[in-house]
Amino acid sequence: DDTGLDGLRAELARQKSLIAAQQQQLDALAGSLEKQQAPSASATHVGFYGEVHYNAFREEDPVIGKSNFHAHRAVILLSHEFADNLHFYSEVEFEGAPDSSDIETELEQLFIDWKINPALSLNIGQFLLPVGLMNESHEPNVFYGVERNPVEEKIIPATWWEKGVMARFLPADGVAVDLAVHNGLRGDVAGLGGADGLREFRQEFGGSRAQDMGYTLRVKYQRIQGLELGATIQRQDNINDRATATDHAPATLLEAHADWQVSDFRLRALLARWAIDGNMAKALGADRMEGGYLEPSWKVTAQTGVFARYNRWNTAANAIGQKDEAQVNVGLNYWVHPQVVLKADIQSTNRPGGQGDGFNLGAGLSF
Amino acid sequence: DDTGLDGLRAELARQKSLIAAQQQQLDALAGSLEKQQAPSASATHVGFYGEVHYNAFREEDPVIGKSNFHAHRAVILLSHEFADNLHFYSEVEFEGAPDSSDIETELEQLFIDWKINPALSLNIGQFLLPVGLMNESHEPNVFYGVERNPVEEKIIPATWWEKGVMARFLPADGVAVDLAVHNGLRGDVAGLGGADGLREFRQEFGGSRAQDMGYTLRVKYQRIQGLELGATIQRQDNINDRATATDHAPATLLEAHADWQVSDFRLRALLARWAIDGNMAKALGADRMEGGYLEPSWKVTAQTGVFARYNRWNTAANAIGQKDEAQVNVGLNYWVHPQVVLKADIQSTNRPGGQGDGFNLGAGLSF
Amino acid sequence: DDTGLDGLRAELARQKSLIAAQQQQLDALAGSLEKQQAPSASATHVGFYGEVHYNAFREEDPVIGKSNFHAHRAVILLSHEFADNLHFYSEVEFEGAPDSSDIETELEQLFIDWKINPALSLNIGQFLLPVGLMNESHEPNVFYGVERNPVEEKIIPATWWEKGVMARFLPADGVAVDLAVHNGLRGDVAGLGGADGLREFRQEFGGSRAQDMGYTLRVKYQRIQGLELGATIQRQDNINDRATATDHAPATLLEAHADWQVSDFRLRALLARWAIDGNMAKALGADRMEGGYLEPSWKVTAQTGVFARYNRWNTAANAIGQKDEAQVNVGLNYWVHPQVVLKADIQSTNRPGGQGDGFNLGAGLSF
Repeated sequence: DDTGLDGLRAELARQKSLIAAQQQQLDALAGSLEKQQAPSASATHVGFYGEVHYNAFREEDPVIGKSNFHAHRAVILLSHEFADNLHFYSEVEFEGAPDSSDIETELEQLFIDWKINPALSLNIGQFLLPVGLMNESHEPNVFYGVERNPVEEKIIPATWWEKGVMARFLPADGVAVDLAVHNGLRGDVAGLGGADGLREFRQEFGGSRAQDMGYTLRVKYQRIQGLELGATIQRQDNINDRATATDHAPATLLEAHADWQVSDFRLRALLARWAIDGNMAKALGADRMEGGYLEPSWKVTAQTGVFARYNRWNTAANAIGQKDEAQVNVGLNYWVHPQVVLKADIQSTNRPGGQGDGFNLGAGLSF
Repeated sequence: DDTGLDGLRAELARQKSLIAAQQQQLDALAGSLEKQQAPSASATHVGFYGEVHYNAFREEDPVIGKSNFHAHRAVILLSHEFADNLHFYSEVEFEGAPDSSDIETELEQLFIDWKINPALSLNIGQFLLPVGLMNESHEPNVFYGVERNPVEEKIIPATWWEKGVMARFLPADGVAVDLAVHNGLRGDVAGLGGADGLREFRQEFGGSRAQDMGYTLRVKYQRIQGLELGATIQRQDNINDRATATDHAPATLLEAHADWQVSDFRLRALLARWAIDGNMAKALGADRMEGGYLEPSWKVTAQTGVFARYNRWNTAANAIGQKDEAQVNVGLNYWVHPQVVLKADIQSTNRPGGQGDGFNLGAGLSF
Repeated sequence: DDTGLDGLRAELARQKSLIAAQQQQLDALAGSLEKQQAPSASATHVGFYGEVHYNAFREEDPVIGKSNFHAHRAVILLSHEFADNLHFYSEVEFEGAPDSSDIETELEQLFIDWKINPALSLNIGQFLLPVGLMNESHEPNVFYGVERNPVEEKIIPATWWEKGVMARFLPADGVAVDLAVHNGLRGDVAGLGGADGLREFRQEFGGSRAQDMGYTLRVKYQRIQGLELGATIQRQDNINDRATATDHAPATLLEAHADWQVSDFRLRALLARWAIDGNMAKALGADRMEGGYLEPSWKVTAQTGVFARYNRWNTAANAIGQKDEAQVNVGLNYWVHPQVVLKADIQSTNRPGGQGDGFNLGAGLSF
């Protein structure tokens, strides 16, 4: 009788073997799922950022003409997690020259990030220096304006990477202290005072003389909701190239910034100042280089933001008759997606004859 | 008694707890499987194509000698899906110069593909122009012959990318219309009439003067099974570099092609013709540049195909005494895998003294 | 009565439906797990290796100064599995010049690996030649010392890649035989005898004249636990550039090495020797180029190893008065992770005036 005691016994036995078979299946599934989650499969991340620009000027620009399309940059970001506390980051940039078909290949980052304990990490290799608002964070979808701001480019000079070791401390909640020892700037100080400031003194990729090391300290304070304060001091005993020049030229950079967000409004402000010693820098009036900017913005909708930016700087502030340069940009960002942005802004400078005035369009993205 | 009613009750209780435990395990597995399927993991695609060639000539070639190995190109394709209707595509090419150890880095594509609705997409950034059979589709495993056909290279001139905006319409089933506004060609028209046609007028990567925009319209018709018809018209008001020359040189390109597949037979045919106005182009006889090719092929087996291609072109068709150039290639493709191909062909030209005659071997792949 | 026979029957029926539901869930999970394991997702592998160095010298080095940071190389490894027996491998290297911001882009590998049967594979394209200990395996975490050994760099000359076809046989367990036909070295033999040996004769990426092919045979023997023996012979009928020189210069390379590991001790030894014929090579005493090194090491702990390396070489061994160059390195590797290494070594040479003496620090990784 199937429904009697014997029937029940038989049914129980069938179920028992079914449950055992299911357990085997479950274990096999769990096993292959675990195998899939092996670190090798997911530990490598391929990222990217890039931007294409259109610039139009009121007056012919000697380098890029009256109007120009510019496939500005394409950047491959390759990172890897070796262990919970051991990561690698790299950034290979392909940068389009403004008026030629040449591409400049740059290696901006190539470093190991080794977390010694929850409050201390070491970065070893080639890394971005901890200074300013833009140097470490310049994906097109995170800032306003088609072109990066001229103050950080010409004064700091961003994007700025060097080789060495950086210790990153988290001494308290919302406080971060970075201390880096790295190869320094190097160039002929007789070339100071030009429009590009210290840009050519960066010893970018490849070999970098370690003759005079640079020391960089940055403190970041983020304990107040919506507010980031940061300040950097950098010191180098001599930026003059010992191979070609003898004038001893110590250099000190002071930089401070604030990034303040209240509801949909945001204000970013930055000041940077170089003091460079030595006879040549003094003679050129380039012993002081300084600049700053103020950038209020308003996120009108979740996808649209408008901004204004007032920039003022001087790469030879002590030279007689050297006026500050000034530039204003006003425009908007439209985020098609949080990581994809279309931009437009108009630009006005204090250069004679309307030079540099015009408008810019841009499309950019990161992932 | 284990087999009595109490025993059955105990057994039932054991099974009940087993089933409950299995359910917990099942839910945990399903959870971690779901986590694995998070979009971030699969939204980025890394692709590639590349090819290595061997060329042997009857007569010494001034640039590459009598025989030459050539690691022709290695191309990294990085794309990303931000959303169902928002994609990014990029192509970084490392191209080997024919007789040197230099590598040319090129950024061929860098654009956002934004689907506004099922019938309309916008491409914004730097993209391949919609013209010809080869310009947008040149992975080695999709075409016959070791080297790309000379007509599209010298007349169109492929591979051709520019910066701008392209609208892609699908007005009806099997009909595609692309309309692009982009930076135009630019060069000194005094250099027209050479063997390379307009190749040097392309403003490849980096900055591109936007002085005179190009407008490109392509219609593609695919309503008949196995048949693709396409035609492109492009117009630019002036290809002469305003910075160095004054002669006004409007240019118009007409291109039409057919790709017809019947069973294992295929026929590809293409015609392209430039009309260039202006005094200099006329004086050089380069006011007309034109060419075409015919390529029958037969897929003998699933892995092996044979082809012949007859090419005829002229980069200064109105110059007195300027004969058309002609080139015939006959050869085969052997697909080791649908995406991996080995190729061989022999080549014969109408150049004096057997120049350019010889054979080519190649290996290529894409993924 | 819930605990009576009817209760048991009801309980059994409930369990039965639970088990059936679980089975459905299990099948669904197994299905989606299987889908995830589709080859397309996992067939492409993105790898990388890179290293950053610091070199300090007792005497000023003309190229890199007294001390130097060097972002030496960043290498992207892209590979793909088309089928179990069909793989693709590529290696794009961005190499930093020692004293400039220039980056050299190199394509070191670009080949298809096609397994014909378990004992025979074909490599087609551009590949690393099978010679020495370092040429095919030079990720920073697999060798001792910050810089690669000078014998393989200057005599072999590694890293050495060419274009062609290589057959890889496995005739017996632990025996591997590689036979490659590839484009050969090419240069003006009047330039032989310099410090860099045949390095400039490599026809790296791009086009390579195939005028005189190279033939390389390597036998590797690994039947004794912990011991690898290898020997390579290479022959080329003429390394002199036919386009610029007429002196016929056949060249033969013999190389042999051992890598012997006993417990935590390891000994690596290598000898390499070139015989170059022709009047010019003889006149320069560069008809013989040779070198070797001996490298004992001890893995003190799982993460720390120490080593010494004695190198001796001569790029013009038959030139009158040309003394052998010698270099000793002693140092340690510290593996933060099996794939991430920090290195330090001191270096001493027999060059006059302590030139080349100094110490090196390095950080490197691969994945």
